[in-house]
Amino acid sequence: MSLRIPGPTPCPEKVLHAMSKQMINHRGKEFGEMMVRITAKLKDLFQTKGDVFILTSSGTGSMEASIVNTLSPGDKVLSLSNGVFGDRYATIAEQFGAVVTRVKFEWGKAIEPAAADKALKADPGIKAVLVTHNETSTGVTNDLGAVASIVRKHDKLLLVDAISSLGCIDLPVDKWGCDVVVTGSQKGWMVPPGLAFVSVSERAWQAHKTAKMPRFYWDFTRAKEFLQKNQTPWTPAVSIFYALDIALPLMLEEGLPNIFARHARLGRKAREGVKSLGLTLYAEEKVASDTVTAVNAPPGVDGKKITEIMRDEHGIVLSGGQSTLAGKIFRIGHLGFVTDSEIDDVIRELRHALPKAGYKIPHK
Amino acid sequence: MSLRIPGPTPCPEKVLHAMSKQMINHRGKEFGEMMVRITAKLKDLFQTKGDVFILTSSGTGSMEASIVNTLSPGDKVLSLSNGVFGDRYATIAEQFGAVVTRVKFEWGKAIEPAAADKALKADPGIKAVLVTHNETSTGVTNDLGAVASIVRKHDKLLLVDAISSLGCIDLPVDKWGCDVVVTGSQKGWMVPPGLAFVSVSERAWQAHKTAKMPRFYWDFTRAKEFLQKNQTPWTPAVSIFYALDIALPLMLEEGLPNIFARHARLGRKAREGVKSLGLTLYAEEKVASDTVTAVNAPPGVDGKKITEIMRDEHGIVLSGGQSTLAGKIFRIGHLGFVTDSEIDDVIRELRHALPKAGYKIPHK
Repeated sequence: MSLRIPGPTPCPEKVLHAMSKQMINHRGKEFGEMMVRITAKLKDLFQTKGDVFILTSSGTGSMEASIVNTLSPGDKVLSLSNGVFGDRYATIAEQFGAVVTRVKFEWGKAIEPAAADKALKADPGIKAVLVTHNETSTGVTNDLGAVASIVRKHDKLLLVDAISSLGCIDLPVDKWGCDVVVTGSQKGWMVPPGLAFVSVSERAWQAHKTAKMPRFYWDFTRAKEFLQKNQTPWTPAVSIFYALDIALPLMLEEGLPNIFARHARLGRKAREGVKSLGLTLYAEEKVASDTVTAVNAPPGVDGKKITEIMRDEHGIVLSGGQSTLAGKIFRIGHLGFVTDSEIDDVIRELRHALPKAGYKIPHK
Repeated sequence: MSLRIPGPTPCPEKVLHAMSKQMINHRGKEFGEMMVRITAKLKDLFQTKGDVFILTSSGTGSMEASIVNTLSPGDKVLSLSNGVFGDRYATIAEQFGAVVTRVKFEWGKAIEPAAADKALKADPGIKAVLVTHNETSTGVTNDLGAVASIVRKHDKLLLVDAISSLGCIDLPVDKWGCDVVVTGSQKGWMVPPGLAFVSVSERAWQAHKTAKMPRFYWDFTRAKEFLQKNQTPWTPAVSIFYALDIALPLMLEEGLPNIFARHARLGRKAREGVKSLGLTLYAEEKVASDTVTAVNAPPGVDGKKITEIMRDEHGIVLSGGQSTLAGKIFRIGHLGFVTDSEIDDVIRELRHALPKAGYKIPHK
């Protein structure tokens, strides 16, 4: 079975193999040395000199962490959203008492940086901006660089969900001035789910000092205190650290420019491939993501049927649509441990599967 | 290296091996079937007909979850604490705005159920009681059955940290009327850290309905909604599910009565063993834990020195003391995947290690 969903993503054999290692003391020397190695490499891959913490949670936990560590109930927050995950970020902030202005963009299109500028001008009381770098639900990569430069101009806090982009698509955390950036281990990192990584800028630390949202498990102060001892405050998912300790050197060996280029190539290949089948992209092509491609189900064909046939008869697991897009789109994940030929396989098998779902592939 | 700390605990070979399996879709059929198998078995081992959820987090995350799902800011809470973890539970509740009455008991002694009765009589406004079943920091098992019957008599909510007891020491969740019981995968369950399990009673669901503490990642309503689809709301730590899918049948095969008997035997063996070396127990013997034994460092000997020698020269990893007990005690973990002979090994090696740390073992 080939897993071509936007997470969990497949892991290299040697990464999986690393997880069969016996447990060790998470307060001991061996774990501490691993923590040092991993943290240094994560910082390189985040392109930051700031702090990077490892949380035992899924990506959503790290989104919550970014909010509760930097904001207080009643704080005004601007949410820029063009999909399920953008909406989720806003909901988390509201749940913890932030007053959220939700600026929504059409699904399948990108966030317009100018709209962020306008919203920040309209309400100078806004303290922070929530943005999704890569919107997994629609297969759109937002122009985070442009959004960041506007947020910097207004001197607001920038919290970024980079769960399905970091380590795949360029995100120079320090250069762009992103304050908290979060991601999950099961995406571009080639390791199983269970860990999340967060970067924290100096500006975020300043905000943290006065942030009153309640927190304990996610608390950055505790994370920093323990990182100074090369530990985590709470017992970490040790086996996923083992996996990471193998995967991160693989990433650094390939090198960020090559990783970005590979994802760009895979994204193009996926888009060209589905178009060659006469299918249309859900996302506007110029902002289409290089980690996940959302494809419109052909008229009259249920997207679920396509993913079922692909899984049951062709051994390829794709994702369906989320929320209101259920049945209307299907999604091909191409992030992390993926090669060109594996995307070729997806297109080839789709060519066989689509007719069974009732779609006639047009002759060129 | 033998890991004899109270978590992470060693895992059987086949459990570790299971984790080298490739990732699968956490929204797919295979994961769903695994979720059904695992949840049913967890309910058996929790001895409950209520809900049991699996969270991707360490045990501390599940302690936070138990609080934020059942309480509102301003709620009065009674904390019964006799150690580091009891104090932690109270701190989490305070952090989220509960008004906590802390009734503290001498470390090394058990919580006195009568004191709970007195405190609940003194303030009928108390809504919930926080209690640690097995206090890992001091090696004491509290009489949870007696505490529970008092809490039931007063008709309060009972939240239980059973992180280092469940699956090792008898805890009949339904019979005792415990409302939320939490535990972590790296303790008695013979799997690596990264997952936490929580049981939720009908009374806890009633409390949940009006509970106003902010929550998103930990939200039981979302957990329940997704469990109905045999999923978790957020991407779970799939590889630790694989491990659990192997470990739980091993536990059920051994059977709860045998598991409890084994831990009781191991506990006795550890206590008798350290006493045979002329050492004294930190915990009062009649309430000493069957999962972890806290041993006083001999007068004039640094406990850290003992754990260092044991690790570096004898290949056995023990735990030191936490908080104010650092250097004053050392702890032997004997929970989960442990046999009698492995505890014999610890005692035998201690006999060689202690003189090197400056302690002269008395002749009988």
